[in-house]
Amino acid sequence: MIKAGIVGATGYAGAELARLLSQHPQAELAAASSVSFTGQRLSEIYPAYYQLCDIVCGTQEEAVEKSDVVFAALPHGLSQELAAECFEQGKAFIDLGADFRLKNEEDYQKWYNGTFAHPELHGQAAYGLPELFRDEIRGKKIVANPGCFTTAVPLALAPALAGGFIEYKGIVADCKTGVTGAGRGLTQNTHFAELNESCSAYKVASHRHNPEMEQSLRRISGKDVTVTFVPHLLPVNRGILATCYARLKDGATPDEVRAAYEKKYAGEYFIRLLPEGKAADIRNVRLSNFCDISLHFDPHDSMLIAISAIDNMVKGAAGQAVQNMNLLFGLDEKTGLTAISPAF
Amino acid sequence: MIKAGIVGATGYAGAELARLLSQHPQAELAAASSVSFTGQRLSEIYPAYYQLCDIVCGTQEEAVEKSDVVFAALPHGLSQELAAECFEQGKAFIDLGADFRLKNEEDYQKWYNGTFAHPELHGQAAYGLPELFRDEIRGKKIVANPGCFTTAVPLALAPALAGGFIEYKGIVADCKTGVTGAGRGLTQNTHFAELNESCSAYKVASHRHNPEMEQSLRRISGKDVTVTFVPHLLPVNRGILATCYARLKDGATPDEVRAAYEKKYAGEYFIRLLPEGKAADIRNVRLSNFCDISLHFDPHDSMLIAISAIDNMVKGAAGQAVQNMNLLFGLDEKTGLTAISPAF
Amino acid sequence: MIKAGIVGATGYAGAELARLLSQHPQAELAAASSVSFTGQRLSEIYPAYYQLCDIVCGTQEEAVEKSDVVFAALPHGLSQELAAECFEQGKAFIDLGADFRLKNEEDYQKWYNGTFAHPELHGQAAYGLPELFRDEIRGKKIVANPGCFTTAVPLALAPALAGGFIEYKGIVADCKTGVTGAGRGLTQNTHFAELNESCSAYKVASHRHNPEMEQSLRRISGKDVTVTFVPHLLPVNRGILATCYARLKDGATPDEVRAAYEKKYAGEYFIRLLPEGKAADIRNVRLSNFCDISLHFDPHDSMLIAISAIDNMVKGAAGQAVQNMNLLFGLDEKTGLTAISPAF
Amino acid sequence: MIKAGIVGATGYAGAELARLLSQHPQAELAAASSVSFTGQRLSEIYPAYYQLCDIVCGTQEEAVEKSDVVFAALPHGLSQELAAECFEQGKAFIDLGADFRLKNEEDYQKWYNGTFAHPELHGQAAYGLPELFRDEIRGKKIVANPGCFTTAVPLALAPALAGGFIEYKGIVADCKTGVTGAGRGLTQNTHFAELNESCSAYKVASHRHNPEMEQSLRRISGKDVTVTFVPHLLPVNRGILATCYARLKDGATPDEVRAAYEKKYAGEYFIRLLPEGKAADIRNVRLSNFCDISLHFDPHDSMLIAISAIDNMVKGAAGQAVQNMNLLFGLDEKTGLTAISPAF
Repeated sequence: MIKAGIVGATGYAGAELARLLSQHPQAELAAASSVSFTGQRLSEIYPAYYQLCDIVCGTQEEAVEKSDVVFAALPHGLSQELAAECFEQGKAFIDLGADFRLKNEEDYQKWYNGTFAHPELHGQAAYGLPELFRDEIRGKKIVANPGCFTTAVPLALAPALAGGFIEYKGIVADCKTGVTGAGRGLTQNTHFAELNESCSAYKVASHRHNPEMEQSLRRISGKDVTVTFVPHLLPVNRGILATCYARLKDGATPDEVRAAYEKKYAGEYFIRLLPEGKAADIRNVRLSNFCDISLHFDPHDSMLIAISAIDNMVKGAAGQAVQNMNLLFGLDEKTGLTAISPAF
Repeated sequence: MIKAGIVGATGYAGAELARLLSQHPQAELAAASSVSFTGQRLSEIYPAYYQLCDIVCGTQEEAVEKSDVVFAALPHGLSQELAAECFEQGKAFIDLGADFRLKNEEDYQKWYNGTFAHPELHGQAAYGLPELFRDEIRGKKIVANPGCFTTAVPLALAPALAGGFIEYKGIVADCKTGVTGAGRGLTQNTHFAELNESCSAYKVASHRHNPEMEQSLRRISGKDVTVTFVPHLLPVNRGILATCYARLKDGATPDEVRAAYEKKYAGEYFIRLLPEGKAADIRNVRLSNFCDISLHFDPHDSMLIAISAIDNMVKGAAGQAVQNMNLLFGLDEKTGLTAISPAF
Repeated sequence: MIKAGIVGATGYAGAELARLLSQHPQAELAAASSVSFTGQRLSEIYPAYYQLCDIVCGTQEEAVEKSDVVFAALPHGLSQELAAECFEQGKAFIDLGADFRLKNEEDYQKWYNGTFAHPELHGQAAYGLPELFRDEIRGKKIVANPGCFTTAVPLALAPALAGGFIEYKGIVADCKTGVTGAGRGLTQNTHFAELNESCSAYKVASHRHNPEMEQSLRRISGKDVTVTFVPHLLPVNRGILATCYARLKDGATPDEVRAAYEKKYAGEYFIRLLPEGKAADIRNVRLSNFCDISLHFDPHDSMLIAISAIDNMVKGAAGQAVQNMNLLFGLDEKTGLTAISPAF
Repeated sequence: MIKAGIVGATGYAGAELARLLSQHPQAELAAASSVSFTGQRLSEIYPAYYQLCDIVCGTQEEAVEKSDVVFAALPHGLSQELAAECFEQGKAFIDLGADFRLKNEEDYQKWYNGTFAHPELHGQAAYGLPELFRDEIRGKKIVANPGCFTTAVPLALAPALAGGFIEYKGIVADCKTGVTGAGRGLTQNTHFAELNESCSAYKVASHRHNPEMEQSLRRISGKDVTVTFVPHLLPVNRGILATCYARLKDGATPDEVRAAYEKKYAGEYFIRLLPEGKAADIRNVRLSNFCDISLHFDPHDSMLIAISAIDNMVKGAAGQAVQNMNLLFGLDEKTGLTAISPAF
């Protein structure tokens, strides 16, 4: 059994990890740490876990000590020292935060207002989006687990960009997210009475996931891709729906675009390319690690519309982190991640 | 008092009209007709109206006879004969359906699979989007009341297109709608258990409002505008959020775009251009006839993002119809439409 | 025009009052005060009010000075001094808090841990539930506006208790409330992600409204009524549903119970006694000042089930406060309160 | 591997069974039948199951033939012939409908307007509420799987009644249910726009589960228990919250009542008796087979308030059916049912 520890276990990503790891057949939740709730059972904060995941929250040090793999679900900036410590002790480190996601320190500085405390570690860190960058993950000790939008958007666009079917400028990613993406912290706009019956955009063209998704799409296409990215907050708990618009190049046909997606994602267990005529829906991936993708075309304006749906807490956070753990430890990638989404 | 009649009073648009007309200080609900519920009180179908709007549903003929103005909230195709009858009797006719919206019969044939039964009436019909086409409405007897998306999208884009600030090709209108837009009829995807916690696109690049919004934008700009239009269904009752993306022409600056909106909409009571830094939200226009518009810019990809929010049942249907009635009858345009949206 | 001021205008009850008073034909919102948001426009906190209710929040002193009637929407304990000040200046005072609701200081001490700072004022204060205690309100200068549960439960049970049809011990009031009742403050259990898809009881048999509802029912019946009161929090914004169970006395028949309700509430505009076979539903009273009541009987256990539904923010708070203002100032009681609840 | 077949697989209970059985380590979904969707994949109706549960719906005959155990999720009245057929062929039969739940044919006639087609089979049928009647289930071939309310209410009250701590008359069961309990069929009151933001009672004191819950409570207590049962429909997908009120007998103390629950449910994996001060919440049991129970007391009216929460589709239907299958086949009762409820 792999001994897994969670640092920052009481936030939403940490709690979701605890749920998944508690049910993983080849891992056990060895430790959980929390600054705010040290000494309390995780099930006191999340009563759904009562009698099922009653682990007591300890310190970060204890979590590292007891674990073969450390998952960090921390506010941005706090992962770097922890990564260094784990690396030194030879422990695998999977970071659900943003500290190792951007390859370019200037980008990190611009968007997160931080610096690379251990530049040498960034070279060691793999970007943990297995369906696009699996080869670089195997054998690594540090994984930068992507964010939710930065999983959904690149998966929706990668085959079209890699195949050269679409213009790489002027791409629009109109995204919709469930509220758990904002975390457990309390804010006025996540108060039930103010989110219910609402829908609005936020951080319009200024969200930190913008450079991260462009970084992935540039790596895949070799082009200087730009994406106009607008997230919207939905009155639902879970899910990312990414509706991506890109202009088809002259001569690109829907059939060949579809064929490119089929080829690229053949054999990818967690990607379900939907049949023609269906549209991806967040409700069909809830509580699962799947990414549903549907392809649509607007012939009167030569536009590809690629829509992806994921559960932001699973494929967009904790589930993908477990998928990365499976990869690091040589397990079948889908171990512990085969739960079927409920139909309703 | 203007005597108003509603043909098709028991659908959602009809019922919303009944609510607004019942509270209108210079109109009275003189008649309501229904095919399915003849002889029943409207408040038996909508118990919220009990003791407040207990009008008994009669026949279409009665509704015409008792009214100075007839509102039709009928399935597509059923309004033309009724319009002819009203026109002949000298009664004002406001159509909440699509029969008189498209000026071009070929478009109507293509998208609605129908023909113009009374071509001469189409010349008499004004397109009832007052903020853009007010001059043509006054003095008319037939008004084609726009649909919900076709109110929200043109209002969001008109000043930028009219001012020549944006490219008129490759425009994206990513829209989100509340479920009442689908009407009172029962379908699997409006079953609570299947819409709750969901979000997905439908009729992708194939919705009937697409040619209608392009018709308005072409009239305004004199250009062959194309819009890729994708509606999404939200788990909320009311609201349209239209997130519109258009490429800024070289040299167009955010300041001059904003100035053009301010100029165009100065004096428009029902349009609230939001201050910089705010984003339009459907919850702020619920149950009101307002259209909130926010402007955003993505400098790294030269994109204008114009977002509009309306209540699909009010400004997107019944409220705008009352606004048109006010215009036809020479009343202050906002009469009966000044309700403040609830804060929560 | 009556000049009305709101002290504590930025909480939910205060904001709802601002909305209602802004639309009142014989009152104007003369002042609004806030400790947290002094100097800000109310519409900055509630953007639904933008351009419609842009009043700037000032101090409590200003609010008193500018007003003929002062509404207090303050945390418990803060109203007494303000009441004294208003009383001294001859201004009407309507308290949406609890300071003047309990007649007995011991009860106040037990449930609110406070004392009567101005005992003489308590004798001057009317309990503002007009349908049950209208006579004592007229001519008063201080009104204790009841809470939401304490409006819904007594209205549901009063005619049965007054008529002696039910046992006055062992009454159960199983209540369900929308989240706005908990106010604008942020708590974990009103976070969207944690309230959505949930339902649970809180403050079981220990809610402060328990002694208040018993006080009203005792006054009406002259009996030592006891109510077991359990509130539940629902994932909806607005509404109280009070399902009240009381054992029918031997010989009491459904027909005579129903007749007693009809008689008691004949002429009460805001009470809608529903026809047999219908059940009260919070959605039918949303945004209105109505209280719907339905009566049901379980013959196999001799039980009366009386169900009432109100909008907790209107009839349960701000609307009833305006109704009381109308009474104090000799206006038609329903002035400004005739909005029809939306059907959806 | 146990071969399991579902007759009526496309309704909500059938679909939930398909999800659970597909993930059961010692059973396989061998067949699924449907009258309306014969020849279609289950995943066409429930796209969440795409590529994960693509079984093609066949006929009832095929389902019986291919299975060791047949689950019937049929409208009332259709199970009896199927049960006879299975019994004859020596196959286990688990009925999620009501045909075998009521022991007394007169009750069945009164509440379901039907007759016992095979009276001898009723003697063979066990009532499948394991925590209360486990002994009678083992070794049986026919199981009447209880309904959702009839699981939640008896589990909440059994220890108090069995121990003689409460009066057996005048019990109130105020229940709240998610909408999936009403099934996949389309009705106006499950239309999203009409259920959202609503809460109301239905079938007040006239629901078919009333005699069924009394039957269980009478068996447990030996007394002529009567329960006033009022179900309410909530705008949530899943869950039953049963708030049960019963008068404590003189001398009964909270401590001894709590002790009786602890003793009764010690060792019951699926029952979680919550610590003092906590209240059962449907969100904590979503998608799980657990039943959370919290105990509360109102000293000022000598009332026990016992609250239970279950997922109506799992412990209230499909999960309990699998639990019964496990019992019939000698498996560990919790096999395939250990999923932890998501925290949000």
